[in-house]
Amino acid sequence: MSKVKRKWDTLRTEYEERMKDAIPLRRRGKEIDAADTVQLLEAVIRAGDKVNLEGNNQKQADFLAECLSKVDISKINDLHMVQSAAPLPVFLELFEKGIASKLDFAYAGPMGGKVAEFINEGKLKLGAIHTYLELFARYFIDLTPRVSMVCAYQADREGNLYTGFNTEDTPVVVEAAKFRQGIVIAQANEIVDKLPRVDIPGDWVDFVVESPKPFYVEPLFTRDPAAITDSQILMAMMALKGIYKEYGIQRLNHGIGFYTAAIELLLPTYGEELGLKGKICNHFALNPHPTLIPAIESGWVDSIHSFGGELGMADYCAARSDVFFIGPDGTMRSNRAYSQTAGHYAIDMFIGGTLQIDKYGNSSAATATRVAGFGGAPNMGCDAKGRRHATPAWLKCGEEFGQQEEYIGTMPRGKRLVVQMAETFLEKMQPAYVDELDAVKLQKNAGLDMPPIMVYSDDVTHIISEEGIAFLHKCRGLEERMNAIRGVAGYTEIGLQANPKITKDLRERGIIQTPEDLGIDRGRANRSLLAAKNVKELVEWSDGLYNPPARFRNW
Amino acid sequence: MSKVKRKWDTLRTEYEERMKDAIPLRRRGKEIDAADTVQLLEAVIRAGDKVNLEGNNQKQADFLAECLSKVDISKINDLHMVQSAAPLPVFLELFEKGIASKLDFAYAGPMGGKVAEFINEGKLKLGAIHTYLELFARYFIDLTPRVSMVCAYQADREGNLYTGFNTEDTPVVVEAAKFRQGIVIAQANEIVDKLPRVDIPGDWVDFVVESPKPFYVEPLFTRDPAAITDSQILMAMMALKGIYKEYGIQRLNHGIGFYTAAIELLLPTYGEELGLKGKICNHFALNPHPTLIPAIESGWVDSIHSFGGELGMADYCAARSDVFFIGPDGTMRSNRAYSQTAGHYAIDMFIGGTLQIDKYGNSSAATATRVAGFGGAPNMGCDAKGRRHATPAWLKCGEEFGQQEEYIGTMPRGKRLVVQMAETFLEKMQPAYVDELDAVKLQKNAGLDMPPIMVYSDDVTHIISEEGIAFLHKCRGLEERMNAIRGVAGYTEIGLQANPKITKDLRERGIIQTPEDLGIDRGRANRSLLAAKNVKELVEWSDGLYNPPARFRNW
Repeated sequence: MSKVKRKWDTLRTEYEERMKDAIPLRRRGKEIDAADTVQLLEAVIRAGDKVNLEGNNQKQADFLAECLSKVDISKINDLHMVQSAAPLPVFLELFEKGIASKLDFAYAGPMGGKVAEFINEGKLKLGAIHTYLELFARYFIDLTPRVSMVCAYQADREGNLYTGFNTEDTPVVVEAAKFRQGIVIAQANEIVDKLPRVDIPGDWVDFVVESPKPFYVEPLFTRDPAAITDSQILMAMMALKGIYKEYGIQRLNHGIGFYTAAIELLLPTYGEELGLKGKICNHFALNPHPTLIPAIESGWVDSIHSFGGELGMADYCAARSDVFFIGPDGTMRSNRAYSQTAGHYAIDMFIGGTLQIDKYGNSSAATATRVAGFGGAPNMGCDAKGRRHATPAWLKCGEEFGQQEEYIGTMPRGKRLVVQMAETFLEKMQPAYVDELDAVKLQKNAGLDMPPIMVYSDDVTHIISEEGIAFLHKCRGLEERMNAIRGVAGYTEIGLQANPKITKDLRERGIIQTPEDLGIDRGRANRSLLAAKNVKELVEWSDGLYNPPARFRNW
Repeated sequence: MSKVKRKWDTLRTEYEERMKDAIPLRRRGKEIDAADTVQLLEAVIRAGDKVNLEGNNQKQADFLAECLSKVDISKINDLHMVQSAAPLPVFLELFEKGIASKLDFAYAGPMGGKVAEFINEGKLKLGAIHTYLELFARYFIDLTPRVSMVCAYQADREGNLYTGFNTEDTPVVVEAAKFRQGIVIAQANEIVDKLPRVDIPGDWVDFVVESPKPFYVEPLFTRDPAAITDSQILMAMMALKGIYKEYGIQRLNHGIGFYTAAIELLLPTYGEELGLKGKICNHFALNPHPTLIPAIESGWVDSIHSFGGELGMADYCAARSDVFFIGPDGTMRSNRAYSQTAGHYAIDMFIGGTLQIDKYGNSSAATATRVAGFGGAPNMGCDAKGRRHATPAWLKCGEEFGQQEEYIGTMPRGKRLVVQMAETFLEKMQPAYVDELDAVKLQKNAGLDMPPIMVYSDDVTHIISEEGIAFLHKCRGLEERMNAIRGVAGYTEIGLQANPKITKDLRERGIIQTPEDLGIDRGRANRSLLAAKNVKELVEWSDGLYNPPARFRNW
């Protein structure tokens, strides 16, 4: 044992060296000219650096990404990108050109196919696919960015940022880099003298640049009610009566997609008919879903904390400050790290659609050739094991858990509800219930460490198809769970393996419940039950405060 | 279905009403005089409010707590305290006087006995005992504070705060209140013109007050090496050889206490002898433990992200900016929310001591008459189910998991190592291995919803006693796990139930490993192996940078 003689501030010294070439580019305070941005990046980034380019499933630091794609590759290459998402073509260009070579991320979205292709071609080495919160966690352990490039609505010349409605990942990304002697660069839509409020203190930011155009935002959580099908409405009715009502679900998250959009739009109609107003859906961790407007306006919702903004919803949220988290300046602040934390620990149910469920109940939205990523689903779609507070919904689900004693002896414990919705057949008659997930093929194709599973079987408590609800957690073992899945899998290959006698027994024991078992009239499952039938009606519900993106304006 | 006619900014209106009486108390900018603090609280707090008084296992907003205990109870009563901890007598005074009536918290520390007593006497209604991160999660869902009272080293008159080394819970507490139209009051040790750096933007803070004396900080994570026993050293040797080495644990958290202090002090001696330097203990989520100084100085540790500060360690941390998370001003910023997130999702092992383990493997630090609370243990001492990235340690533990197929079919998945250390007998010959946890009695005594379990059986992978290590996760079912526990429980009642033939079989299968099985010479397990034998030697290792609190200075 011996004390090591070494410098203990190499990161600091190196930061100062990098800054030496960069500081002269500052024009006014910390502001640099947009035209100098490529030069700035060449000054502060070194080959092999861990680098974060802010981008998630919503906002994107697109200007900084474009500038990074233009750096001199002989100087800057082999970067290890550690960032939430890579949904724009420019992120992939970095790998195409060899500027970056490794990626640790959470969500690829539309670039999922390219990511898989690049892995195969050896252009991109994939670290892992994370949930957002998991990746943020690693920023403080083994994936700390050396340089973080973020985006803001406004900045002042001292480096203070206003990230407002779309604050999202910025606070955690900036803190991780800046407090380990890293460099933080922000693109802002506007450099101003006085911000509406400070979201990120100027001390934490080294450079700000006014970008030539506003940062890109994707309206990912906007669903047009006009595209909701009768089958989705039937499944939404089952969810409301068989689960929301049965467990009294007050605190929850809705996944992305039409299944949960249908549920949101049934609250003021079918939900009210069931007498559930005030008893369910009080508190959400949720992006500002436009399809939730009718329920909010009907007085269903007490509070919503949001991961991110949603294009067109800023004015509506600002005008509903009793419901959303609004700053002293009157605009919302989203915060992905805190909202994902809330979604992990403080909600009683995660419910969302999926693309494939295997015979065991594992589910995934991956296909054989697309590394799509998880976003936040696994973080919310799991039984958060460190949870210690009790609610009636959580306790009831735990009491019903058929394998509790095998897990923890006679000790009581609750259980989070994790509900996966999938019609038996998807588009083009692809079965949603399968023997083996495409995720397993993807693992082989893309050389991943593990198949990218969105929700594991032991976390799923309920599966809903148009055939019925399978209450998987009530089962006493794997074989019984498999039988319950078969019983709601319809005419898929999995469903055809169902033994009618066993299915009947499971129905009698309440492990499978069909619409008939739930007393739901299939004939009523049609679009007339929706509180809003199209985007125009959502705008009307909002008193004109919701301002949908152009592509959703079809009237 | 119908649109509700209502005001949508009642929180905002009410905020403004409360501020009307409070704003005249501002003397210079947002600064109020210490003498006006009680009056301020009477202006901004209303009976029945959810209120946060910052306090965790380290720093305490003690001045604001004292002022709150002096308000006019005819005006302010029945408060619902939503806060990390209540370890000072003044917090309990609020309940004694009837100013507060309900508590949701994470840690009671030395007040655990009083909390139990007050529950019994009906003075305190307990919501739930949470982990820190879980409580933070609820701040954004159903436990949002209406008024938050926090503490800082320094504030300026615009409300900007410097929380520095002890930033801890402040950012999340402030954000939750301020962005739901709440009121934020900060006590600062000093009001200054210019802060070293901004930790909390002034926009988020309504009032600052210079407290008559600096806020209280508890040196909770300081352990004097002089008090480490030979038995603890033996268990530390087993941990290092049987677990750290076996799994190649690079990213981890150490619980509080002497067991892990012993491990830290063996790294530069026994750890180096085992050839583990550079191979284990690279990255920690950890408070700045003084007992880790010799390992840091010997070059073992790459990075440490901290939940909070530790009294006396500020200068040492600042001088080791390659290791700790240090701001641009040269001082550390801790952050409990982010560090707990890191501890939940980004580490491969949690290891810590416990007071009781039941026959199933559930463990708790509660006694029958003390509501002690969890702090962060359950959040890190669990298999974080939403985790999706793979490391060799996590994969190996998952491959060994004996019930994997029953849980998720043939799908592969890794597993977090959760190691609980307990000698067979505690002080006064109380057995640590018991038929039923005291937590079950406490549940009845204090009328809790659930027994306060620190780590549940299905999360524990390894138990270490002086008899050996039980590799519980390798077992094929509950009965086998119970046998493995009996096999390391020595002469406790549980240990005496062990069947020698079964124990022998478990040893042969590697499910139980004794010191002999591990090739560890019990004779070497003594204090000569410690890299530092007392606090003075820790100070020497630190080049005098570590400045221990007076009670640890015995030379």
